[in-house]
Amino acid sequence: MKLFWSPRTRAFRTLWLLEETGAPYELVRVDLNGGDGIDDAELLAANPMGKVPALVDRGIPIAESGAIALYVADRFPEAGLSPPLGDPERGPFLHWMIFVASCVEPALVQKMKGVELPTSAAGWGSFEKVMSVLDARLSTHPFLVGERFTAADTLLATDLGYFIQVFKMLEPRPSFTAYLARCAERPAFVRARAIEAEYA
Amino acid sequence: MKLFWSPRTRAFRTLWLLEETGAPYELVRVDLNGGDGIDDAELLAANPMGKVPALVDRGIPIAESGAIALYVADRFPEAGLSPPLGDPERGPFLHWMIFVASCVEPALVQKMKGVELPTSAAGWGSFEKVMSVLDARLSTHPFLVGERFTAADTLLATDLGYFIQVFKMLEPRPSFTAYLARCAERPAFVRARAIEAEYA
Repeated sequence: MKLFWSPRTRAFRTLWLLEETGAPYELVRVDLNGGDGIDDAELLAANPMGKVPALVDRGIPIAESGAIALYVADRFPEAGLSPPLGDPERGPFLHWMIFVASCVEPALVQKMKGVELPTSAAGWGSFEKVMSVLDARLSTHPFLVGERFTAADTLLATDLGYFIQVFKMLEPRPSFTAYLARCAERPAFVRARAIEAEYA
Repeated sequence: MKLFWSPRTRAFRTLWLLEETGAPYELVRVDLNGGDGIDDAELLAANPMGKVPALVDRGIPIAESGAIALYVADRFPEAGLSPPLGDPERGPFLHWMIFVASCVEPALVQKMKGVELPTSAAGWGSFEKVMSVLDARLSTHPFLVGERFTAADTLLATDLGYFIQVFKMLEPRPSFTAYLARCAERPAFVRARAIEAEYA
């Protein structure tokens, strides 16, 4: 596997995810100039949006960090990052994975940019609604899908970490802080942070 | 399976998807009051956001239309709505599924509401970038993932149909129009439209 990645971007979630699998991979650092994607031919072949993260596995490109998480989790079942097909937790796993991509992320961008939207306009309703659903979930479950850490946590914890700890734009509710602490204890998280530090 | 649904909403995509499977399901019409989700206890148990669509399968709730699409496609492999695990098209299928949820939808909401965002702020880059990637894809492939119709098309075609044909807020590029025409020929699409018409 080859991972196109830049330090201090959303691509951290994929770096962490690959570390969770224990599988070997090649890390390709992409120098983003900010903005609307970049024109590097190899990156564009992996992701037509010209953005990181993008993964190439056995010659097949997969982009969008949520898609990479779903793909990698199923590709390495021994890592236990997703409930298998037919498992009763499979549906809830997919639900919370997509909830991060479809609700948490646009709600955070909306908040960051101070955009007002009617709650019926967006699939994510409102920022407040998304945060209260998330708070209720993390107050009653150690990880997003339930008792066990899954690939969904590499997505959510990266987002919450950026907005609470780096941007300081999100109220550190107790459930969020405790959740981030649980995630930060993962050896793969610690390794991914060390890789970032090395490149920064 | 039980589907919580309202006519003339994003939940059309799930209605269409279930018709594609040929499997039996119970349709529960939810009267939305617009706004921030509703307080119906049965719906909230299926989706803590209080929104449609939400699915309950064998007692297990699954919300978020993208997650339902992934789940249902894998649950009914005989319907051919997703490449199976291990298939070379599995990664691209996941990529384009998530592209709709993470890029197309927030970009369309951004456009509809006339919101300006720096292209580095949002995972979807810019509205123009998303539309040009989509145009390039649909100009060279009959369906989003490639040669075959998949669950990803129930998501994308519903979005494009609303924005082009109903809201008239999206330029009907030739690739989009031809794609929508291909999707509208599907017998399951026609059945789902008839169900909507019956309830409206």
